[in-house]
Amino acid sequence: MQLYLLRHGIAGQHGDPHYPNDDERPLTKKGAKKIEEQLAGLQSFGVQPDLIITSPLPRAHQTATLVANGLHLADRLIVHDRLAPGASTDDLLLAVETYLTEEMRQRLDKNQDLQVMLVGHEPDLSQAAAQLSGGLGDIWLRKGGLIRLDLDSLASRRGILRWLLDPEHLQVRKSKE
Amino acid sequence: MQLYLLRHGIAGQHGDPHYPNDDERPLTKKGAKKIEEQLAGLQSFGVQPDLIITSPLPRAHQTATLVANGLHLADRLIVHDRLAPGASTDDLLLAVETYLTEEMRQRLDKNQDLQVMLVGHEPDLSQAAAQLSGGLGDIWLRKGGLIRLDLDSLASRRGILRWLLDPEHLQVRKSKE
Repeated sequence: MQLYLLRHGIAGQHGDPHYPNDDERPLTKKGAKKIEEQLAGLQSFGVQPDLIITSPLPRAHQTATLVANGLHLADRLIVHDRLAPGASTDDLLLAVETYLTEEMRQRLDKNQDLQVMLVGHEPDLSQAAAQLSGGLGDIWLRKGGLIRLDLDSLASRRGILRWLLDPEHLQVRKSKE
Repeated sequence: MQLYLLRHGIAGQHGDPHYPNDDERPLTKKGAKKIEEQLAGLQSFGVQPDLIITSPLPRAHQTATLVANGLHLADRLIVHDRLAPGASTDDLLLAVETYLTEEMRQRLDKNQDLQVMLVGHEPDLSQAAAQLSGGLGDIWLRKGGLIRLDLDSLASRRGILRWLLDPEHLQVRKSKE
């Protein structure tokens, strides 16, 4: 399974008086634009999730919605409360486990490709990436940044760190296009 | 210091009878072409090393030469025997330590930008990345792939994993160009 961990885009300033509840801060106009510009890279690099599960906070939900709509996968988007800030690696894996369909499980059993994207918050995502790749290291995931982990199986909780991308690595076109 | 770890490009097959000594395998024509296509990405993403140190093996030396020439940095390329396959993290850091100029040291002391690129082999590079980011995790670095680590200092031997890129992530142009 290819597990993609996407951090939400640039949101309003922490402490913005318009959003007394910090959780409510939406993406800025620029933040939304940058996520839209990243769609080109996601497409170039074959990111086409079978399932997109997002934190319910507006800055994550908006990010996930832009990606899901942009990739024409709006029907594969699920909002899951346990992906809110503070999510543990267990929370993330349980979210995947919860929403896998029977057809997806069968594909996993047959070692066929399956892509799941989780849209959430730091440090939750980079901690999960470190834990799932068997390490304890420091990984820095920028806003709009993307991690790819290839997991042996959900149950094993072990995989290999494959990508760690800044948003700029996705705001691209292939040289030959 | 930004430490870049670049794995050599695609080389001849292991066991090719033309190269009874495995160490002598050069890049294939396709391998060299792919490295040249990665120059666009290196430039887009601000990779402009102050120093490029390469393993002496042909497949690494050729890779480093293509990058150094392509970025107009041929005078910054150094061949260092200890970067041959089997290099430990100590070997890699000692190579950097050995070739830093006094001017580069002063820039580091002043916390100014400095980029050093090491061109070498697996699993040496991903092991170093795992160790230097404080972990023991599994990282998969493809041929032509690039890791970026931001190190606090050479002496501390500690830093943050910032990028883990496939070669395709460098065969790109910025969307807006």
